[in-house]
Amino acid sequence: MVSPEQSQNQNFSMAKHSARSKTTSFFSDTLLFAGGALVAFLVVWALWSLFSTTPSPTPSFSSTSFSERKSAGLESAVVSPSQSCAVGASGFDMVHDPTDPNFYDDRKLSYSIEAPPIKNWDEKRRDWLKQHPSFAAGVENRILLVTGSQATPCKNPIGDYLLLKFFKNKVDYCRRHGIDIFYNNVLLQPKMFSFWAKTPTVKAAMLAHPEAEWIWWVDSDAAFTDMDFKLPLDRYKAHNLVIHGWPKLIYEKKSWTSINAGVFLIRNCQWAMEFIDVWASMGPQDPGYDKWGEILSTTFKDKIFPESDDQSGLIYLLLKEKEKWGNKIYVEGEYYFEGYWMEIVGRLDNVTERYMEIEKRVRRLRRRHAEKVSESNIPVWEEYLKDAGFGREGWRRPFITHFTGCQPCSGDHNKMYSGQTCFDAMQKALTFADNQVLRNYGFMHPDLLDPSTVNPVPFDYPS
Amino acid sequence: MVSPEQSQNQNFSMAKHSARSKTTSFFSDTLLFAGGALVAFLVVWALWSLFSTTPSPTPSFSSTSFSERKSAGLESAVVSPSQSCAVGASGFDMVHDPTDPNFYDDRKLSYSIEAPPIKNWDEKRRDWLKQHPSFAAGVENRILLVTGSQATPCKNPIGDYLLLKFFKNKVDYCRRHGIDIFYNNVLLQPKMFSFWAKTPTVKAAMLAHPEAEWIWWVDSDAAFTDMDFKLPLDRYKAHNLVIHGWPKLIYEKKSWTSINAGVFLIRNCQWAMEFIDVWASMGPQDPGYDKWGEILSTTFKDKIFPESDDQSGLIYLLLKEKEKWGNKIYVEGEYYFEGYWMEIVGRLDNVTERYMEIEKRVRRLRRRHAEKVSESNIPVWEEYLKDAGFGREGWRRPFITHFTGCQPCSGDHNKMYSGQTCFDAMQKALTFADNQVLRNYGFMHPDLLDPSTVNPVPFDYPS
Repeated sequence: MVSPEQSQNQNFSMAKHSARSKTTSFFSDTLLFAGGALVAFLVVWALWSLFSTTPSPTPSFSSTSFSERKSAGLESAVVSPSQSCAVGASGFDMVHDPTDPNFYDDRKLSYSIEAPPIKNWDEKRRDWLKQHPSFAAGVENRILLVTGSQATPCKNPIGDYLLLKFFKNKVDYCRRHGIDIFYNNVLLQPKMFSFWAKTPTVKAAMLAHPEAEWIWWVDSDAAFTDMDFKLPLDRYKAHNLVIHGWPKLIYEKKSWTSINAGVFLIRNCQWAMEFIDVWASMGPQDPGYDKWGEILSTTFKDKIFPESDDQSGLIYLLLKEKEKWGNKIYVEGEYYFEGYWMEIVGRLDNVTERYMEIEKRVRRLRRRHAEKVSESNIPVWEEYLKDAGFGREGWRRPFITHFTGCQPCSGDHNKMYSGQTCFDAMQKALTFADNQVLRNYGFMHPDLLDPSTVNPVPFDYPS
Repeated sequence: MVSPEQSQNQNFSMAKHSARSKTTSFFSDTLLFAGGALVAFLVVWALWSLFSTTPSPTPSFSSTSFSERKSAGLESAVVSPSQSCAVGASGFDMVHDPTDPNFYDDRKLSYSIEAPPIKNWDEKRRDWLKQHPSFAAGVENRILLVTGSQATPCKNPIGDYLLLKFFKNKVDYCRRHGIDIFYNNVLLQPKMFSFWAKTPTVKAAMLAHPEAEWIWWVDSDAAFTDMDFKLPLDRYKAHNLVIHGWPKLIYEKKSWTSINAGVFLIRNCQWAMEFIDVWASMGPQDPGYDKWGEILSTTFKDKIFPESDDQSGLIYLLLKEKEKWGNKIYVEGEYYFEGYWMEIVGRLDNVTERYMEIEKRVRRLRRRHAEKVSESNIPVWEEYLKDAGFGREGWRRPFITHFTGCQPCSGDHNKMYSGQTCFDAMQKALTFADNQVLRNYGFMHPDLLDPSTVNPVPFDYPS
């Protein structure tokens, strides 16, 4: 039993407790609420950190206003705050290179073709990408186009003029598709002249561009003639090297022209590093050069000159080492991954007409647009190009037209055709391609053989 | 006073209350906690939505596997899922162009220099960017470099060879800095020949590239000789046109060479559209051409030929219409926005040595790295170049070296110097620049006058 005093005490303590409870309750309620909020923030932050592939923006450099700095010169202006975090203008963070070691810090690393191939390149590239996360998104589709020509003026008086136009053509294609391009004009290995110059260049490019998944070598005498077409990279996901060719000619005929080594797509990976090493070892700088000349001439009965060449060499590796090399080499024959100009140029007028007929019918394709969103028309075109056909019987724009045998730089074209024929054909193909580019700038060449003349393209052309 | 029963009841009810309190308390505590968490999530989501500038990624196209499609051909392969959302590989969404109207759908839009300038360009560009948000981030620093040369082969046998090298040089600079480049090689207005060809090209480029804030015209005979330096765009935020020049020579001497119109940076805006229209109206296609020749010859006493030229024209507008034009034109004289080759090339060996001395001392600058993160070294270099000086008394790498007077294409160089002098100077500057590029590919030219030879760069060079 509780005494009145105890009861009263209880009342009082209840009241006190009640009052204290209210206050305590308020504080503890607040703490609980805040605790919930804090835990929520922590969870969100943890999840964001886990899934975020881009670093948080660098805090801007503290900066004084320009006028204060003007007298101090431009030193601080060169890294202005708005430029300090390059993610944005170009889409990538180009200003940060963390000091933690990566493969570049290994003194054994060599860019040179004669050095043994790098080891664990796949892992090293992956580590570099982790270190530079802004390049990680979309890496599987990132391409670096590599091309080039000799260091000295062309022997053909018209040679450098043509090379300049071929280079512009490639730059146009790359700009439309957000692809980087590197033009090399010096032999990285002095003995690896002519077509042999590719592999040293490609190896150096692979090491200089760990952000690129693919290196796309395109000869100086090859032009893009379908400015919209994109490499179907998904097709090649199980392969490391793509070349244009015909399996029948490789395996049955064993022809040295069963593939073309003037255009290839090679994955920036360990397999490729090793392949390049073996492929390059057939070259003039190697003691085995003469021996390779004999082997390749014996293997390919239609080879036209006795010296070892990179094209026969490639086919040889494909044929003889199927397990190691052949199985990873995709011989693409379903579209003009590169196309022989002789079976293409004569059809360009017809192709132009067929495409114009489609444009006349489809409003969307006539619509003007920024060059940067040209890719948006690809699926629209595909609807109408379903039956166009990719090869010589078809009328699709050929992807790449390759002037094999024309030798624009030296002028030592194949005697099968005249220099004028080659020249006219090159002008035609380049102007045909240029029309696809200039369209977005409001102009077109009315005559494919006259690169000097353009007319404004009227609104809603060609309706 | 409380009776024992009441007390007991109280005890019981307290106990019950206590028990019920515990349960209720637990639920209400949980609710409070969850409430705090919910409020926190809502706040974070609201803030993120407010500040987020990029849309959520486009859902990928539904696709059948390649093998199912292979027999159907390549049509669907050309827009493979991994490529369908182009944000990633290049950083921008190039595959979507919404059908809602934008300025391109106005039939009055003309790319041609002779058409009246577009109206409300600032608003139209803004609307286009809203429609294509992946280009909005970083737009204020986005540049398109425009250059070009004639449609026909150069008269100088060595001309196209040089133009090709100058073009490669620009492509190298642009690749390092994520800048797009457009090379034009046809007169968009047939009468606007030679230096007049710039304005039609720039106008067309502005309309074709609404994603670019700046168009940077760089003459075909100008080379980047500091591959690291970036335009200090913050400096120009209150201006719409940047040229290299000396105010004294403009305002006091009224010299026609007080500025150089071969390199300019123009904002992609309404002011610029109107300026270009006025500037171009001084050209050969305009009825006022002869009158302008007289006016400009009278205004600029040192003008060397009677015909209207774009450089004098620009200065004229700057001088005579200060309110409208002059105030928005930034005359940059504090660094080689473009520099006269004669005062530069002779110093390049010394510049090379000074930079090498710095590299010998600073480990970080010797560190190999991917070309794409070359910009990360800029602040490190700036520490050591504080007192280098930007002009002819200094030893900083000149930003752009302009071979004014050398006329590599026609060969009609200023008689002040020989063709050989020009040629050697161009080779030297281009090789000097190439060394900065090739370094990231593992090679260097030992002799600036010999573009044909490179040596591998050893690890930790030049320590």
